[in-house]
Amino acid sequence: MPDALLRHPFLSQTALAECHDEAMVQAMLAFELALTEVQEAHDAVPDGVSEKMRQALAQHVFDEAAIAAGIASGGNAAIPFVKQARAALPDELKRYFHMGATSQDVIDSALMLLLKPRLAALDALLVRCRAAAVELMKRHEGTVMVGRTLMQQALPMTFGVKVAHWAIGLEQARRRLAQVELPVQFGGAVGVHSGWDTLGLDFMDALAERLGLAAPVLPWHTDRQPIHALGTALDAAAGAAEKMALDISLLTQTEVGELAEPSAPGMGESSSMPHKRNPVRCAMIRGAARQVHGYTTVLLNAAAQPLERGLGEWHAEWSPLVDSALLLEGALEQAATLLEGLEVNPETMRRNLAATGGGIMAEPVSRLLAPVLGQDAAKRISAEAAETARLKGMSYNEALEAHDVVKAEAGGKLQAEALRQATDPALYLGSSQAQVRRAIAWLGE
Amino acid sequence: MPDALLRHPFLSQTALAECHDEAMVQAMLAFELALTEVQEAHDAVPDGVSEKMRQALAQHVFDEAAIAAGIASGGNAAIPFVKQARAALPDELKRYFHMGATSQDVIDSALMLLLKPRLAALDALLVRCRAAAVELMKRHEGTVMVGRTLMQQALPMTFGVKVAHWAIGLEQARRRLAQVELPVQFGGAVGVHSGWDTLGLDFMDALAERLGLAAPVLPWHTDRQPIHALGTALDAAAGAAEKMALDISLLTQTEVGELAEPSAPGMGESSSMPHKRNPVRCAMIRGAARQVHGYTTVLLNAAAQPLERGLGEWHAEWSPLVDSALLLEGALEQAATLLEGLEVNPETMRRNLAATGGGIMAEPVSRLLAPVLGQDAAKRISAEAAETARLKGMSYNEALEAHDVVKAEAGGKLQAEALRQATDPALYLGSSQAQVRRAIAWLGE
Amino acid sequence: MPDALLRHPFLSQTALAECHDEAMVQAMLAFELALTEVQEAHDAVPDGVSEKMRQALAQHVFDEAAIAAGIASGGNAAIPFVKQARAALPDELKRYFHMGATSQDVIDSALMLLLKPRLAALDALLVRCRAAAVELMKRHEGTVMVGRTLMQQALPMTFGVKVAHWAIGLEQARRRLAQVELPVQFGGAVGVHSGWDTLGLDFMDALAERLGLAAPVLPWHTDRQPIHALGTALDAAAGAAEKMALDISLLTQTEVGELAEPSAPGMGESSSMPHKRNPVRCAMIRGAARQVHGYTTVLLNAAAQPLERGLGEWHAEWSPLVDSALLLEGALEQAATLLEGLEVNPETMRRNLAATGGGIMAEPVSRLLAPVLGQDAAKRISAEAAETARLKGMSYNEALEAHDVVKAEAGGKLQAEALRQATDPALYLGSSQAQVRRAIAWLGE
Amino acid sequence: MPDALLRHPFLSQTALAECHDEAMVQAMLAFELALTEVQEAHDAVPDGVSEKMRQALAQHVFDEAAIAAGIASGGNAAIPFVKQARAALPDELKRYFHMGATSQDVIDSALMLLLKPRLAALDALLVRCRAAAVELMKRHEGTVMVGRTLMQQALPMTFGVKVAHWAIGLEQARRRLAQVELPVQFGGAVGVHSGWDTLGLDFMDALAERLGLAAPVLPWHTDRQPIHALGTALDAAAGAAEKMALDISLLTQTEVGELAEPSAPGMGESSSMPHKRNPVRCAMIRGAARQVHGYTTVLLNAAAQPLERGLGEWHAEWSPLVDSALLLEGALEQAATLLEGLEVNPETMRRNLAATGGGIMAEPVSRLLAPVLGQDAAKRISAEAAETARLKGMSYNEALEAHDVVKAEAGGKLQAEALRQATDPALYLGSSQAQVRRAIAWLGE
Repeated sequence: MPDALLRHPFLSQTALAECHDEAMVQAMLAFELALTEVQEAHDAVPDGVSEKMRQALAQHVFDEAAIAAGIASGGNAAIPFVKQARAALPDELKRYFHMGATSQDVIDSALMLLLKPRLAALDALLVRCRAAAVELMKRHEGTVMVGRTLMQQALPMTFGVKVAHWAIGLEQARRRLAQVELPVQFGGAVGVHSGWDTLGLDFMDALAERLGLAAPVLPWHTDRQPIHALGTALDAAAGAAEKMALDISLLTQTEVGELAEPSAPGMGESSSMPHKRNPVRCAMIRGAARQVHGYTTVLLNAAAQPLERGLGEWHAEWSPLVDSALLLEGALEQAATLLEGLEVNPETMRRNLAATGGGIMAEPVSRLLAPVLGQDAAKRISAEAAETARLKGMSYNEALEAHDVVKAEAGGKLQAEALRQATDPALYLGSSQAQVRRAIAWLGE
Repeated sequence: MPDALLRHPFLSQTALAECHDEAMVQAMLAFELALTEVQEAHDAVPDGVSEKMRQALAQHVFDEAAIAAGIASGGNAAIPFVKQARAALPDELKRYFHMGATSQDVIDSALMLLLKPRLAALDALLVRCRAAAVELMKRHEGTVMVGRTLMQQALPMTFGVKVAHWAIGLEQARRRLAQVELPVQFGGAVGVHSGWDTLGLDFMDALAERLGLAAPVLPWHTDRQPIHALGTALDAAAGAAEKMALDISLLTQTEVGELAEPSAPGMGESSSMPHKRNPVRCAMIRGAARQVHGYTTVLLNAAAQPLERGLGEWHAEWSPLVDSALLLEGALEQAATLLEGLEVNPETMRRNLAATGGGIMAEPVSRLLAPVLGQDAAKRISAEAAETARLKGMSYNEALEAHDVVKAEAGGKLQAEALRQATDPALYLGSSQAQVRRAIAWLGE
Repeated sequence: MPDALLRHPFLSQTALAECHDEAMVQAMLAFELALTEVQEAHDAVPDGVSEKMRQALAQHVFDEAAIAAGIASGGNAAIPFVKQARAALPDELKRYFHMGATSQDVIDSALMLLLKPRLAALDALLVRCRAAAVELMKRHEGTVMVGRTLMQQALPMTFGVKVAHWAIGLEQARRRLAQVELPVQFGGAVGVHSGWDTLGLDFMDALAERLGLAAPVLPWHTDRQPIHALGTALDAAAGAAEKMALDISLLTQTEVGELAEPSAPGMGESSSMPHKRNPVRCAMIRGAARQVHGYTTVLLNAAAQPLERGLGEWHAEWSPLVDSALLLEGALEQAATLLEGLEVNPETMRRNLAATGGGIMAEPVSRLLAPVLGQDAAKRISAEAAETARLKGMSYNEALEAHDVVKAEAGGKLQAEALRQATDPALYLGSSQAQVRRAIAWLGE
Repeated sequence: MPDALLRHPFLSQTALAECHDEAMVQAMLAFELALTEVQEAHDAVPDGVSEKMRQALAQHVFDEAAIAAGIASGGNAAIPFVKQARAALPDELKRYFHMGATSQDVIDSALMLLLKPRLAALDALLVRCRAAAVELMKRHEGTVMVGRTLMQQALPMTFGVKVAHWAIGLEQARRRLAQVELPVQFGGAVGVHSGWDTLGLDFMDALAERLGLAAPVLPWHTDRQPIHALGTALDAAAGAAEKMALDISLLTQTEVGELAEPSAPGMGESSSMPHKRNPVRCAMIRGAARQVHGYTTVLLNAAAQPLERGLGEWHAEWSPLVDSALLLEGALEQAATLLEGLEVNPETMRRNLAATGGGIMAEPVSRLLAPVLGQDAAKRISAEAAETARLKGMSYNEALEAHDVVKAEAGGKLQAEALRQATDPALYLGSSQAQVRRAIAWLGE
């Protein structure tokens, strides 16, 4: 697989530097050493064994290629890892290594250990996004732009409130991720701590504490709710970033031009077309999010696993789960950079508000006219004026004042000032500002 | 679509009876009436309007076929519904109906209203499952069976602990579902309460309270985190039920025979093969769960919606979301019936424990022999005895006692009683019992 | 399920009128009657039986509600259907009904019969799309517009060639669908025609011929390649329609305005905003396609079915498969309407070409300047002139001619005519026309 | 990502050795060199340029890390690759490199080149599976086993016909894959060969021929039908292998024991349980297939790409597409090994036929008794005898002969020989043999 060229571009470089085969081996080792320590603390192995074991293995250089080569016969990395580790131990320690554990205990727990710093990194990125979004919200609390439904211009709003909606989505996802528990897995061959009786649950709880993982109610070898909760929470965050990237890419279209990705040397440039500034970060976020959605479906379809060990269902989880986390981290790095450096063009936003010849203000105008002219006439006249404005290139306000019916009522029930106000998008922003403030309060920034 | 023959068999009949087009119309109406009431309470419409509106519409018989026919031009049911409702109102009330609302406000809120009783029903079913599971766990706390990994016999466990694992999965899903919020949606055309200024958010909060829905931080017209959280929580519960159905269908196989679905007249019978008792409930659960997984992927891929209104993404959510809830309800009805009436055959469980000639006890035997004979010899001898037992049809204990090496040590370091105990699956159940008790405590039953 | 309000809007009304529970019952009946006829033709039942059976059942009014109610105990509609049909037969015919068949034979074959006219309808719709697309291609062979990559203006092309790309996608999907075989299923209880020996395969082949279905190599009760091929071909066509809808919705944006959906009374109108014309057909296509993608994943994940009958995997196929076909039919009706009535605004396309101040012509200009000024200077000057044009509101050609460096070379190596040509988008259309002609030839219109 | 430990175990080692970053770079180079050659052949570049270019670059060692690092700014590997290649060329050649091409042309075509040997490898593996399957089919044409529906014993069949069903599935998938075209992509910036006019299509066709790829009708930069066809064909083959793996894993269950995976030193052994032989190959196939299903959903949801270049949709395809091919190759290597070395236990198959006390023969017995005793009595007696056989441990035939009603008729209309035959599973195999022969003919082996 051409990883560096096709897969890694979507990923966080930090994550790639921290989350690799060696880290997985170290995570498996951490599990095994903690297990022996726990067992020693419960007098299940002689005093001093765990310390000797740690000394013997801490500096040991594992041969990852040999572990990889050994996977074929057993179907997972724990089996050859345990063999290799045991071989590196003095004979008198061998029997205490991996005692009472099964391969799935090692792999599942190691995956949780591997993902723990990733979840911390994701949280930090989402906090960074939140802070940057709040900055944007404050700065653009009064920046008027047009809202668009079904991609058609609809009614005015502010850019600040648009960012607030992004921020709420991202923060909901952050809170959901923050609630996800990464439990230790320890159950032995069939999940009932065979040979250890009630000590097994004590070991499990102590292991969780020692490894900084959550203690599950019971071993979860084929109860994959924890994986489902984690995978779908990752997907939710990917969706929140994807929503923002979709909006930004629509607003950076040449004909819209209200936003631009942060400029950086060479960023988004086209090899052949100097006038272009491609929304590359948005493309990478959207590319990553779509992969996450697909990988998540693997987890959904693997949630039901047979009896006391998956027969492929478990194995299918590994890549999609870790990939989802790494893809999300890459996407959120892009999202944070976007929010921190987004180029906002209030001037263009204002210009675009006029694109329909004022037609977007037909609703408030119609509301104003209705009590005087009746609802039907109000609707008709507000639309006719918009058409006139568009055709003659005049402002909507002028077109309205020039309309025969309006002229007839002018000065009477229809005050010029009221008309002017009804055609000013900046005076028709609804709860935009209030939403920004409510959002900031909720975001806690 | 041949709904009655192809789709409805998976669904809850209760749900079908409650969740239909008329209910959707009533939910849309409930939203609109509550909106006017809220506006009246805020002095945004004259006193008495909402009461008159309710009187005019409460008994109105909506023409659902006409609403359905009117969907084509606008793309959702709210538009023709609003037209029809307005037409049924006296002229002086017309302008107060649907005031400040947009189609998506109506549809999204109505869907939440429609789903609220479904979530209550799901919770009740999961509570029923929990109670039935606890009964089974208690009854079979000591029922010995073999645990199976990769579908191969591995080591002993109890049926009670197996049920405990199912119950934990279902209860995790129940708690996740219970935390899902069903928020009201109210934002107007572009989500900023155009024309209402700060009143908009007040309306939103008051609407939530009046309708018994959650109040969101902000309108969520294109922030679909609430839909994602709901859809994936439904999927998690489907996965928990599916896991149980997978186990039961494996344990009801002719050659395993440890469980049977509850018998009922005609249930699971084969038209041509009188000896068969098909695990039909399991098939229906598994069929439903797989559909839910697919429908959930629609929601994952529609989480990012453009600007202020989805252009198909929103529309794509409706069926998959409601279908998922109904399919899950159907699956949980089956699950509850299974748990309440499951036929458990402890005798067969015991017989199956002997299927490997005692081979499943090779691990404990090897543990017993190791200190006396060394680890390698212990493993070899425990395996040889299992082979002998299988070939000669004797018990594993007899085969062990007859083994030359064991005989040589007999009476010395290897006491017959210790050997007997090491070969007794019922004495090698690990934390099975402790897990059942811990589970019961956590389940709160 | 509120079908009429939430699900049916995406579906073809024709399809809904033809594909329903009664049609499913009739399809099951057609299978059974054909089976008896085939068996009679092979002397496996007495002469005249099949004719009597047909007479007894042809006018029989099946009680679909009773069939539906009977599904619960066996898990599929064939079992209660067979019971009901048999009950309606004279005693002497009962034993010949459903002889040698199993439920899956009936359901799978009936589904194929149900889908056959749908595939024909899909083909007809795709042919309609093709004809309309070719019309558009011919009409707009020379209509210049800007091509957009990553949604940024890039270089000129024609609207004709854009339609050609849509048409090729749709036609590829049509040909793929046309190659999909709808095979009869007939295998008996475990797929080996128990009790019929070699006659079984003869029955299967004869049944296929009689029912107008394909004859499979072998029964395919748990070889779901035919379902996979069908489901993914439906999805491919959904993707082709979705691509067109995505393009059209982007090109109908207020700020782009190059296309508009066909106008029709009330179509796409907004209840509150008179200036809007929403791309409702595009939204419905995109909404349908996204559902199809999700339903297809059910089929992908159900392709592997255990032993001689799925335990839920089979059951899970029914709704997603039929729904996909109906959703696609609805989407293609919309697509055909769009292609037949699309409003194309060549004037706006031309105006948008100037949006970058000519910047989209920087590449050809730079090509022209390079031999005279060197590649770097050429790139710089072409970009500077674009910037000048944009700022001063002059044409790109004027800005170029006014550039100092260009002026210095003017009349010499840089002829004014050559400059003018290099800045004319209409002269930089590449293979647009040739592609349209090649496409028409391949489409066979 | 811990690739070696979590992802690669599912992949083909051959594929991993051939399909990597360097191969991708070489594929991009092959595209560019062929393009210049084609252009030279069409007199679009001076004679000799392509040869000089090839000499300059053929031995050039590309710095993949630098290419990878350069991806961030443009979002794909072609941009930094082109820069690096151009930098390695003498100045006079630089301008002829990548002339008229865009990044997507390079990446898409390179992917097709990368996948071409993989498709060949897949075909070879499927041919290997086919040959091995035919061997098994011939050897076990008469090996009687029980067919199972909903995992319950149903009626007899042969192991040969079961393999035939697997083989048909795999061969259907092979033929589908063999029909998939891998087209060259060449369209330039917006897909219309800007600057080349009609030459563009000539280049495209000539490129296809030179690179051994298919010539598409038109460039397919945002017409992703070719990717959809390829991705879903890969998924179909994954499903066919998964079906076989599911059956084998069910038939290797301890209690069933009819099959075992090929034994090999250490293969499938459990670290703690010497009696186990885990179906590891089946687990790896099932694990791979589930991932493929998920990756395929990415492709389904990315089929619709905007205007002239995907904005993330395109980028999302890369990993899932290549991964699917590599996962499938790994799965098919396992499948071939399974088919070539499967351990079949006809003795156990025969023993399992008796597990229901003959109940599986109740249908044929009931058929035999019906004309003599009437249909209802026949059904009842055949079931009672099965129950007696099961309870008393006698053969079904004995139990039948001992039944009062049967005894009463014995020697008369019910001949002992007929009874014996009706209870012999080996005489009730239907079309098993005929199906095997028909399959072999169709498979062409």
